[in-house]
Amino acid sequence: MTPFSYRCTDCGRTYSRDEVRYLCPECGKSYRPGIPLTGVLEAVFDYDAIGAAFDQARPDWNLFCPVETAFHPPLPVGNTPMARVDRLAAELGLGELWVKNDGLNPSGSLKDRASFLVAAEARRLGIDLIVAASTGNAASALAAVCASAGLKALIFVPEKAPKAKLVQMVLYGATVVPVKGTYDDAFRLSLEYTEKRGGLNRNTAYHPLTIEGKKTAGLEIWAQAGFRVPDAIFVSVGDGVIIGGVHKAFVDLRRAGLIDRLPRLIGVQAESSDAIHRYVETGVYADAANPTTRADSISVTCPSNAHGARRAVQESGGLTLTVTDDEILSAQAALAARTGIFTEPAGATAYAGLVKLQAGAKALPSGARAVILATGNGLKDVEAPLSRISIPPAIEPRLESLPR
Amino acid sequence: MTPFSYRCTDCGRTYSRDEVRYLCPECGKSYRPGIPLTGVLEAVFDYDAIGAAFDQARPDWNLFCPVETAFHPPLPVGNTPMARVDRLAAELGLGELWVKNDGLNPSGSLKDRASFLVAAEARRLGIDLIVAASTGNAASALAAVCASAGLKALIFVPEKAPKAKLVQMVLYGATVVPVKGTYDDAFRLSLEYTEKRGGLNRNTAYHPLTIEGKKTAGLEIWAQAGFRVPDAIFVSVGDGVIIGGVHKAFVDLRRAGLIDRLPRLIGVQAESSDAIHRYVETGVYADAANPTTRADSISVTCPSNAHGARRAVQESGGLTLTVTDDEILSAQAALAARTGIFTEPAGATAYAGLVKLQAGAKALPSGARAVILATGNGLKDVEAPLSRISIPPAIEPRLESLPR
Ligand SMILES: [Zn+2]
Ligand SMILES: [Zn+2]
Repeated sequence: MTPFSYRCTDCGRTYSRDEVRYLCPECGKSYRPGIPLTGVLEAVFDYDAIGAAFDQARPDWNLFCPVETAFHPPLPVGNTPMARVDRLAAELGLGELWVKNDGLNPSGSLKDRASFLVAAEARRLGIDLIVAASTGNAASALAAVCASAGLKALIFVPEKAPKAKLVQMVLYGATVVPVKGTYDDAFRLSLEYTEKRGGLNRNTAYHPLTIEGKKTAGLEIWAQAGFRVPDAIFVSVGDGVIIGGVHKAFVDLRRAGLIDRLPRLIGVQAESSDAIHRYVETGVYADAANPTTRADSISVTCPSNAHGARRAVQESGGLTLTVTDDEILSAQAALAARTGIFTEPAGATAYAGLVKLQAGAKALPSGARAVILATGNGLKDVEAPLSRISIPPAIEPRLESLPR
Repeated sequence: MTPFSYRCTDCGRTYSRDEVRYLCPECGKSYRPGIPLTGVLEAVFDYDAIGAAFDQARPDWNLFCPVETAFHPPLPVGNTPMARVDRLAAELGLGELWVKNDGLNPSGSLKDRASFLVAAEARRLGIDLIVAASTGNAASALAAVCASAGLKALIFVPEKAPKAKLVQMVLYGATVVPVKGTYDDAFRLSLEYTEKRGGLNRNTAYHPLTIEGKKTAGLEIWAQAGFRVPDAIFVSVGDGVIIGGVHKAFVDLRRAGLIDRLPRLIGVQAESSDAIHRYVETGVYADAANPTTRADSISVTCPSNAHGARRAVQESGGLTLTVTDDEILSAQAALAARTGIFTEPAGATAYAGLVKLQAGAKALPSGARAVILATGNGLKDVEAPLSRISIPPAIEPRLESLPR
């Protein structure tokens, strides 16, 4: 832990860590559920202290962490493997390609990183309840980390959420409250709950430490690529918080004088859930009216971190693109068959984007070093690929039945 | 890699690594599918060399590895987290308790470790095909590692295997061949295939490097417990290869002079799949006639490594016990809610055994240091806990609808 303050990403005002909790008191005033967040806070550290203390030979990642280790939950989160996949790199005309497999977090997704840090913050503040609205990875991540930390998790879900999606969070001991209406109704209720009854709200980007938590994926990518900045990192984009977190990692590293450039961040969205892509391309924000993508972790009408995601892409000299569901599910199978890494459709979206980029005019040059961030475990949703596979008919149990 | 030879665990004859491939040519003669393996080979290293070279400050685990690193697949396998769970330790009257979460291997189970090493061996031998019979974790593990290593995987499955269980291996690009009849028919066909048509057979314990692969879990447990030998390690037991591998780790460490005692190995079986438990208790082997347990990874009629598992328990001063399916599924939920670790029913079986042991006359003394080996990811089978959870009815989206 290094001393830090919060700075508003809109107006630049700074606040101490105990002065504010969620959004900039000024810029957050104009926020209401249903629009992208305004007044998102960013942790700004004493970077001279980090730069002076950080040693690649014995990296102390807690230097980049905004919560004291004494409050960290005992569940190991992060430190996921990053596989170097040379055959795939050659296929795609790249110098080096890595797959960071964040599906190997305890609850099966990168979101454990955000929940870990918010749970640490709750313990620091002496708050024993964390509240969120989600049907998916964020809720399971919160429930897992709370179970480990001895905290209560209260999770609002839309009434029509399938029971199978809730198994994980229920087993982890979370209180799950189905809410009549849509996801937005559940989201509004979660905000109202923490305003009026208490608890810490973990909704993504709304609590600034969700971005700081996700940042750790970016720090690990740097270290695992040999303490070198990749030329490009491919990230699937839904609400825009993961790409914001990865960006923050490299911003922090640069501010601390440990690197001298940012990796290009390539944000990949599903065609029907493309609000951030259109925002980056046109500068005008509009909801994705009817997201229907099978990649449910990135199926988002109104991305909470739209502004931050756009900034991450632009500051890094990156770009965004979209892919179809067919491209996503083909990419999921292709990545599994070429690397042994089985990632959920949202995770495979990043790889689908790389394949598409390399086939077009904006392809990365040969020799480029790229990273695919696989955000969730394929086991989260085996139904998605199930319809696309075929099993041959059974043979008699004799060798002669088997064609050579 | 340290020089080693193979020694038959029955007659003690030794062979060079290129002289034999699967079983002792003498003792393996009496083996036929349907009985526990005889003539299982054990890798015996130059332990003086290991003891002299191993340095805790910079541990080189390849010293314990029987295949040169140049042949290792590029998929990172193992190095899974081990969580220290103090609250649970206190509940159970233990001094220290750890959960080794091997569900966080790439395909979701500890079996990736065995497949990794067999794939490395195939590359060393210049064999491009690996063959196995399995419907479960072993097949998915083999398919994942082969995808990464650029090898072909041929997997025989019983015709009635549910399609959802095959999604993972098919996505990884394995050739899946359903076989009319039972698992035994598929198993026999896999042996016939490698005898007559070629390829390397990865069936568990039959290929001696499956035990060496699983050994790495034991080495990591030692290191992650602070290079100390735990008093007891709880392992769920099906075919008996995992407990054999964990045992081999500590045997190797002791032979190398790095430790001076073995941890007690506590083998936990499902009540209906208890062949090894009865064998340990009575000294007489008999199949588990009708295994019906929901913990399908340990549902085994005839455990291939029955002899080795019994030896592991006895040499370590351990014991075996059985638990009911109800105890297993309760343990799965309790472990998730207390630690944030969601393991498949077979993984939770080890924890169920610990709970049961601590409630009885053979309880570990207070102050004991114990490890639970969680062998597979809970996401492998969300159907198992699904029937046991209940979701409350949906509320109106207003705070007043929610009881305080
Ligand atoms: Zn502001
Ligand atoms: Zn022999």
